[in-house]
Amino acid sequence: MAPVLDFWLDFASTYSYPAMMRMASLAQAGGIGVRYRPFLLGPPFKAQSWETSPFNLYVAKGRNMWRDLERLCSDLNLPFRRPELFPQNSLLAARVALVGLRVTWGEEFCRAVFRAEFAEGRQLDDAGVVGDILAALNVASGPVLESARSDEIKAALRQQTSEAQWLGIDGASSFTTADGELFWSNNRLERALAWARDGR
Amino acid sequence: MAPVLDFWLDFASTYSYPAMMRMASLAQAGGIGVRYRPFLLGPPFKAQSWETSPFNLYVAKGRNMWRDLERLCSDLNLPFRRPELFPQNSLLAARVALVGLRVTWGEEFCRAVFRAEFAEGRQLDDAGVVGDILAALNVASGPVLESARSDEIKAALRQQTSEAQWLGIDGASSFTTADGELFWSNNRLERALAWARDGR
Repeated sequence: MAPVLDFWLDFASTYSYPAMMRMASLAQAGGIGVRYRPFLLGPPFKAQSWETSPFNLYVAKGRNMWRDLERLCSDLNLPFRRPELFPQNSLLAARVALVGLRVTWGEEFCRAVFRAEFAEGRQLDDAGVVGDILAALNVASGPVLESARSDEIKAALRQQTSEAQWLGIDGASSFTTADGELFWSNNRLERALAWARDGR
Repeated sequence: MAPVLDFWLDFASTYSYPAMMRMASLAQAGGIGVRYRPFLLGPPFKAQSWETSPFNLYVAKGRNMWRDLERLCSDLNLPFRRPELFPQNSLLAARVALVGLRVTWGEEFCRAVFRAEFAEGRQLDDAGVVGDILAALNVASGPVLESARSDEIKAALRQQTSEAQWLGIDGASSFTTADGELFWSNNRLERALAWARDGR
């Protein structure tokens, strides 16, 4: 069985964008299976009394992050445009991703959401935007949006968010291995994949 | 003239340890001159109402950092032992480093301080420990410690710390280039050196 890496992502998280865009090809090259685990950073942030992103709470930190992300995307040839609103409400996108990850289009949807948010300046809390993303993937949005609002999917996202907290995840992107290692941030993506493969 | 990178380090900072140990050979390979700039993170932390390291304030963040640092040091073949006290009071070591950086032994002193702290479990606020480090470098500690407590050196450290804040530095290690770029963390060391050399 191929080794597996769990990829914990929040669509509101800036560095999850390059991590998501880099993941598929790096994982394939390393022979690693990826489980995409959308969750919400809101609850862990609230647990430490942050009402918004620390990048908004701490001004210098935020300024440095945006510049760093811009340089990083340029290095990776990823289109980048700083969103007007940050952090975005990622609830709807996360629920839709959970629907898609149960079938075939979840991974591609995740990439498309990050691209819409950080390259095209679109807002994720707008069902029309999410519908456009689905349409571009040739997925009929009506039944998907209905399913995304079902009790089952709502519970699945809460469950996944609780699991992230239980694992000690307090940032995105994070990566966890079957043997209990936790790696935080896009910077650690290569290291996490190597650990998943070699067990150290 | 060789391009220059400013390396802002606080001896209390965990990831400054691998950054310091990696810097000299990477900079030399890239033909970059390094200005070592010890400063204190205390004032910027206080400015955002942190009375101690965020790694202590946020438990999951701290646990993840220590494990990440342990893995990182193992990957780099750097000895590592988690200090009993964290963060340490880095005031004396920073002042002594400023003395040494005006002459010949400053850079080697910086490496030795990080090694004492993160590999040997020694405490930096102890003048005896700092004296031992100096002795191992064949530097007579008496006049150095006296100089480190002079008004001139005290003022130089305050000045350097103010300059760091003015540059928007809110973490260590940080790297700044002549054209005004700021890179944060050991993860960005290679990128910062490349920017210093190529200007983008």
